[in-house]
Amino acid sequence: MERDTERMHLGVYAAGTGNHVAGWRYAGASQSGEDFEAFRRIAESAERGRLDFFFVGDNLACVPEEHPGMVARLEPFTLLSALAPLTRHIGLIGTASTTYCQPYSLARRFASLDHISGGRGGWNVVTTSSPESAANFGLDTLTAHDLRYRMADEFAEAVKGLWDSWEGGARIADPETGVYVDAARIHPLDHEGEFYSVRGPLNHSRSPQGRPVIVQAGSSESGQAFASRHAELLFSVQQEIDAARAFRRGILSRARAQGRDARWIRVLPGLMPVLGGTEAEARGKLDVLGRFVDDSAAMHLMSDRLGYDMSRYSLDEPVPDLPRSEHIHGYVDVHIARARKAGQTLRDLYNLFAAARGHAVVSGTPEQIADMMEEWFRARACDGFVLLPAYFPAGLDEFVDEVVPILQKRGLFRTEYEGTTLRSQLGLPVPENRYSAQRASGTGQVKRSRGATSAPTLHHT
Amino acid sequence: MERDTERMHLGVYAAGTGNHVAGWRYAGASQSGEDFEAFRRIAESAERGRLDFFFVGDNLACVPEEHPGMVARLEPFTLLSALAPLTRHIGLIGTASTTYCQPYSLARRFASLDHISGGRGGWNVVTTSSPESAANFGLDTLTAHDLRYRMADEFAEAVKGLWDSWEGGARIADPETGVYVDAARIHPLDHEGEFYSVRGPLNHSRSPQGRPVIVQAGSSESGQAFASRHAELLFSVQQEIDAARAFRRGILSRARAQGRDARWIRVLPGLMPVLGGTEAEARGKLDVLGRFVDDSAAMHLMSDRLGYDMSRYSLDEPVPDLPRSEHIHGYVDVHIARARKAGQTLRDLYNLFAAARGHAVVSGTPEQIADMMEEWFRARACDGFVLLPAYFPAGLDEFVDEVVPILQKRGLFRTEYEGTTLRSQLGLPVPENRYSAQRASGTGQVKRSRGATSAPTLHHT
Repeated sequence: MERDTERMHLGVYAAGTGNHVAGWRYAGASQSGEDFEAFRRIAESAERGRLDFFFVGDNLACVPEEHPGMVARLEPFTLLSALAPLTRHIGLIGTASTTYCQPYSLARRFASLDHISGGRGGWNVVTTSSPESAANFGLDTLTAHDLRYRMADEFAEAVKGLWDSWEGGARIADPETGVYVDAARIHPLDHEGEFYSVRGPLNHSRSPQGRPVIVQAGSSESGQAFASRHAELLFSVQQEIDAARAFRRGILSRARAQGRDARWIRVLPGLMPVLGGTEAEARGKLDVLGRFVDDSAAMHLMSDRLGYDMSRYSLDEPVPDLPRSEHIHGYVDVHIARARKAGQTLRDLYNLFAAARGHAVVSGTPEQIADMMEEWFRARACDGFVLLPAYFPAGLDEFVDEVVPILQKRGLFRTEYEGTTLRSQLGLPVPENRYSAQRASGTGQVKRSRGATSAPTLHHT
Repeated sequence: MERDTERMHLGVYAAGTGNHVAGWRYAGASQSGEDFEAFRRIAESAERGRLDFFFVGDNLACVPEEHPGMVARLEPFTLLSALAPLTRHIGLIGTASTTYCQPYSLARRFASLDHISGGRGGWNVVTTSSPESAANFGLDTLTAHDLRYRMADEFAEAVKGLWDSWEGGARIADPETGVYVDAARIHPLDHEGEFYSVRGPLNHSRSPQGRPVIVQAGSSESGQAFASRHAELLFSVQQEIDAARAFRRGILSRARAQGRDARWIRVLPGLMPVLGGTEAEARGKLDVLGRFVDDSAAMHLMSDRLGYDMSRYSLDEPVPDLPRSEHIHGYVDVHIARARKAGQTLRDLYNLFAAARGHAVVSGTPEQIADMMEEWFRARACDGFVLLPAYFPAGLDEFVDEVVPILQKRGLFRTEYEGTTLRSQLGLPVPENRYSAQRASGTGQVKRSRGATSAPTLHHT
């Protein structure tokens, strides 16, 4: 598979209580999803380690039994915006749902985040799978999975269109003449689709990145179809190197079939690194965390992830054959297939979800962890990783202090930032504005989107 | 009228291009609604002046002809959140519409802002009057004025209910026992109303202020009814001291009729102060600004404010008798009545809107401006002012450097902050959580809101 760089990309998934369901119980760990100073420390540590981005998830309901980091958490736009002036280089990726919001509102917030951060914003597109969320937004039942993705596809098209509303140079602001804008460079969208009607233009000028980076994390069939059309960064769930390589190859191939240049797509599996001075010490940390797991929280987490009430099954029996739900298709498929193939019990799955919500866990010495990462990267199984420290701040600090220098020494990771935008960290081009492109190509009358897929020309800056 | 303090409250209405429609053309003025550094400077200057709050408006459409500060602007939550860690005492009030959003989303964002800022958040409730906005959110026409306010009333009830979801102390986070929350102190809302259905609970713990401060700026009959039920701070439009006194008396009286304690309501008219070393110098500044006014922007602004295309009328004829629109009732009434009574031409109204969007303008020496402010305050015509500098940064810096010291010397304004929350600056109590109140009063079973008005007990902290 093509790759334009021999450097990996790394981000951190910032969960206030740690990514491990019991991470908050670890000695010295942050214990709240609402502690801004704890998030500030994570961002500062990540920037010290020259990471590409700081990533926050989201959920739209409060279920007291679930992962403590999801019970009460800072809302992504408020959190990332507050971090923007306190950081200088690191990307700020926030999760936002397409199911309970309007394209105009979402396009504005990300454009605004991109302006405030000087071009470091990214949108992790989710469709929100929790049934509890629906009831908070006036819906009796969760919208069906495939319908949610059809809505998301149109939603993303409209958002991309709104981000193009203002061409570069549309603001004149000449105090002498009193001309404030060049109205010919500000375009309505006039989107009329199946689910959304959005006139535009957006009340935001072209943002520093042209468009915030689009991120996607679902691995269902619908999720992959969405990713192949829109995503520039995929946060994937992979446990095994061969499956990861096949997944990456598949996504790049599907993106090419959509007319996209696959060089501009980054595939980053989640990874929980648990470090120790020795392998045994690292394993010991995992065991401590495992003993901290609260049964009801872990069972709820597994049930939530799989879309079934799993408390009906015995933990010590083989993984049952579960029918598909309106939930998280791809996720379920990956795990059920792997676990059944390996002859695992339900308890093995349960432990996996409790640790990293289904993402890969690697424990060992810093060298061992760097080895695993290098192996995956060189095998083209990924373009880097989204790190999911089990607890904060130590789980990230250790990685930055002990693993990053090894990766840097091996030439696998940057030693200094080379730009100040998320696109520059990820090596992604700035998408050209659709109207500027048409103007440049001399096609005269600028066409307006009516829900059609846009495939903007890309130019590297 | 009752008043618990002899100190006035002051806030600044931060518009990136200045509040005067042509303020951006003034020498040295900020010229963009998207320049974060310019907003940062405003916040720092306001905090240096010991002002109570930094206030941002909002709009949900881009009309290239309108006020330059509204064409492209930072979204309020991103802007205020980014300012939060850079400031320590000043309140952060953001405008957010009830018409194109859901209560759950809005309640979260303000709770999050309140957490991040350590208790400095405030919500300026608007229903959004611009017809252009509707088309950005899939609606063919603007929802009728009174219906918007009925929706807003239920919306605000639901938001207040969500803010009470978590009682104080609901987060246990005991690493020894592994108990993370006390589920008995986390309450669903189960709101089922005419317009909204919201199950809850909110995924946010009780915020530092209990509730962010609720602000309201509409002066129509529906707006005043809303304010009397919900608002703790009113940003009013008043040109004359007697009308202002009558307005304030009316609002406090209506609030008492709702069972509220009128001591906990602040009424602050907007005021554009234009300073000079002499009266003539100040007048000269206003004249310069007047000559900068772009006819089409000013005409659009007046038409937008009045809800009619005013370009059909001659500027040099008396103000016409306009029928009511689905627009901004109270605003129109105040201005039309005053202008017709004074025998003004349409041009006089036009100049007024161009300057401060209808708010009072006072020009003169610092002493003269302080005199006017003191007169209004002592006459109980207001509890302070929302300052609308014509341009930034100088328009605010001059006020802070030259008028604030006079007010302080006269004992009319604080010399130091006495707390770190917006409620503490405004002298407002922290509302008691409804469930904690019921628990304390021993009424046993905690009742759930079903769209009924809540009148929580207040306790001063």
